[in-house]
Amino acid sequence: MQERYVDKNFSNLVSDLQKLIRQPSVSAKNLGLEECAGLIVQMMKKSGIHAEILRVKKGVPPAIYGEVKSKQNPANTLLFYNHYDVQPEEPLELWDDKPFSGTIKGNKIFGRGSADDKGELITRIKAVEAFLKTTGDVPCNIKFFIEGEEEIGSIHIEEYLKKYEKKLACNAIIWEFGYVDEKDRPIISLGMKGLLYVELSKKESIRDAHSSLAVIIENPAWRLVEALKTLRDMDGKILIKDWYNEVDKFTKEDLLIINSEPFDENSFKKEYGIRKFVGNKKGIAIKKALVGEPTCNIAGLTSGYEGPGAKTVLPSKALVKIDFRLIPKMDPKKQLLRLEKHLKDNGFGDIEVKLIHGEAAARTKISDPFVKTVKKAADDSFGTSILSVSSAGTGPMFSFVKFLKSPCIAIGSTYVFSRIHSPNEFARIDLLKKTTKCMCKIIRNFATQQVL
Amino acid sequence: MQERYVDKNFSNLVSDLQKLIRQPSVSAKNLGLEECAGLIVQMMKKSGIHAEILRVKKGVPPAIYGEVKSKQNPANTLLFYNHYDVQPEEPLELWDDKPFSGTIKGNKIFGRGSADDKGELITRIKAVEAFLKTTGDVPCNIKFFIEGEEEIGSIHIEEYLKKYEKKLACNAIIWEFGYVDEKDRPIISLGMKGLLYVELSKKESIRDAHSSLAVIIENPAWRLVEALKTLRDMDGKILIKDWYNEVDKFTKEDLLIINSEPFDENSFKKEYGIRKFVGNKKGIAIKKALVGEPTCNIAGLTSGYEGPGAKTVLPSKALVKIDFRLIPKMDPKKQLLRLEKHLKDNGFGDIEVKLIHGEAAARTKISDPFVKTVKKAADDSFGTSILSVSSAGTGPMFSFVKFLKSPCIAIGSTYVFSRIHSPNEFARIDLLKKTTKCMCKIIRNFATQQVL
Repeated sequence: MQERYVDKNFSNLVSDLQKLIRQPSVSAKNLGLEECAGLIVQMMKKSGIHAEILRVKKGVPPAIYGEVKSKQNPANTLLFYNHYDVQPEEPLELWDDKPFSGTIKGNKIFGRGSADDKGELITRIKAVEAFLKTTGDVPCNIKFFIEGEEEIGSIHIEEYLKKYEKKLACNAIIWEFGYVDEKDRPIISLGMKGLLYVELSKKESIRDAHSSLAVIIENPAWRLVEALKTLRDMDGKILIKDWYNEVDKFTKEDLLIINSEPFDENSFKKEYGIRKFVGNKKGIAIKKALVGEPTCNIAGLTSGYEGPGAKTVLPSKALVKIDFRLIPKMDPKKQLLRLEKHLKDNGFGDIEVKLIHGEAAARTKISDPFVKTVKKAADDSFGTSILSVSSAGTGPMFSFVKFLKSPCIAIGSTYVFSRIHSPNEFARIDLLKKTTKCMCKIIRNFATQQVL
Repeated sequence: MQERYVDKNFSNLVSDLQKLIRQPSVSAKNLGLEECAGLIVQMMKKSGIHAEILRVKKGVPPAIYGEVKSKQNPANTLLFYNHYDVQPEEPLELWDDKPFSGTIKGNKIFGRGSADDKGELITRIKAVEAFLKTTGDVPCNIKFFIEGEEEIGSIHIEEYLKKYEKKLACNAIIWEFGYVDEKDRPIISLGMKGLLYVELSKKESIRDAHSSLAVIIENPAWRLVEALKTLRDMDGKILIKDWYNEVDKFTKEDLLIINSEPFDENSFKKEYGIRKFVGNKKGIAIKKALVGEPTCNIAGLTSGYEGPGAKTVLPSKALVKIDFRLIPKMDPKKQLLRLEKHLKDNGFGDIEVKLIHGEAAARTKISDPFVKTVKKAADDSFGTSILSVSSAGTGPMFSFVKFLKSPCIAIGSTYVFSRIHSPNEFARIDLLKKTTKCMCKIIRNFATQQVL
């Protein structure tokens, strides 16, 4: 079965991706990161790309720098940003195959990282390899920057960007991922939401107690439920004072793009087995929410006995993980202070707030010439493509724009229902190949683009 | 060290208890139950007690029946009720020794079940053994009934009691456990609270999603938090309609006993590392709450990612385990209906309610002559003792009273800070021995008591 999908032009695309998947690299657990970085350096060298390990300080996962200088056009430099770390693989019991198997079934390669972000990375390496193998040169300078902490909030990205600012200097950036919708149209996303990820916890007693004592010992799980209930109303509106202060209305230009974006409500509902959207949203309201609505999401909740059957226990502690999505102008630091103040003002000063990470949102203007460059390559490769004001997801785009002062555009091979961050994550082999072709076209088009 | 605590009169008390601890018997996991029942039958036979396995139906853990007929006084029959199953041993990381080690350190035997309930069981077996070894007879008929599902709510206890009603016929019952307070005074408890244990769960989508989708997919953890918040106010008062309908005020007789019960607030606070009690309760309010206050306790809470670091996930489901303690006249079935109605009436009909188990509360009257019999034995053995209207804990006392129509009294060897149901559970060896002596005296006193 496997041979069928190996394209002559992008040799070992599938088998190299399998190699990457089979090397676990879970940043949340500090698992396999050095090994994975080493593997990628080897792989890039084999493709003819100069590759080296970058480091900022001890204990921080390494990053990888890649470079190919163009003989024909050394004026324009395109940088590919990717990450080699992946999300934790849990819950294990819901995977059909082992999470790091790289199992191929028909047109799909399964495994944690198959789509996010090892699948994206391989398309870019293979595109550059294709130029080098066929012409011995690349149409413009190419750089790679591949980090190992994206899934835990790119904690040291600014340290890397600051230290290697000159090395990474470029005129345009292709972002680490991009979605392809259910009709195989690539989504060209010009921005990312920001993120504030916190843990709220309450510790009451020094040990779990028999639950008959609940008449006299406070239950920290109840305390947490009470605090949580003050954060959000039942429609998802965040009740923290001043939370929306910096939220701007959409511009007419934004609305035009949002309006023309397709969104297949039925496919989406089917994929997740849901009957309606939050607040019964329909049509453009859904698209506006994805682009521009801040959220307060419970990502994890834990306290007491979680095994089978009954245990009559009064837990000693309770913890909740919350991720807030932010939009441009919302500052994660300021929002954290607002959250802390909210808890204190509402009598929940006893709840401990731990910042896990924060990232501001970023957007590239539609008027930037790089937008046309990418759009043309995408239309040529896929027949059509969709422009989007901002992805609903988050990445450290703000830091890249700040240090490298270049436009950033997200475009890639990730099928919209690829189950990234979830069990049975997969990449579609046909899209990996199409996207590799698209990356070739972006490189070629960008070589002749006037850079600002 | 061990030898020091082996009393000549109760040979192998400590080593036999270790044997019982080392045989895991976790009913919530259906782990080691048959093996443990077999071990106890052997042990009882070795002590001279007729012992046999009782069964109600396939798949239900066996119970053990034990019997010694008295030659000198076959008129009075005393039944010991115990259980051989234990609570789950989690959280494992908080145990200093392995949960089923039976490690002895000074005056303590550590291990899951050391106190609850294998420690209690061994004192009763050894008391009967002592009579048989020294006199070849017992002062009155003795029966044992030892079940294997107490920690999961004695699910089949009524089936056992119904099927073996004649076999188990008796004039008085010594309950499976009893506390000894921080001043080494046994607490003679005349009742137990009831329990309603439920799981509330919400399933939203068919799989976890990337949390950027929280703008459009409902979060079941939020839904559960919202439902939970309607159940209880911040002082612990249950907000479910009619919940307290059957709650009677304390009688003067009850209040007299409650008033005279000691409760060392400072020792208790120190043991649990807490600074105040729920609702800032003090003095008699604490004791009244332990005897007569219904509770709504979160025993477990689980949703989404609970590992280290960050995962930006939108969970597909959320679950909470709740135990409600009930007092006499509150019917678990009726209370469950009230809970279900409450959820529906408050717009939470989408929350699934699963009954794990229900038990009604029970109390023996202070005027019953068996109370004096037990009190005298306890005073003689410990120097003093404390009468209590009801334990804060739960057991199937109601079913025993209904089928066997006998007074039930809880008295035993469990030091009040024994960490039952928690990591590092232990039994105090000195109390095991004192209580075995006390059981001998109860048997002797009961032999001459007029039975009603």
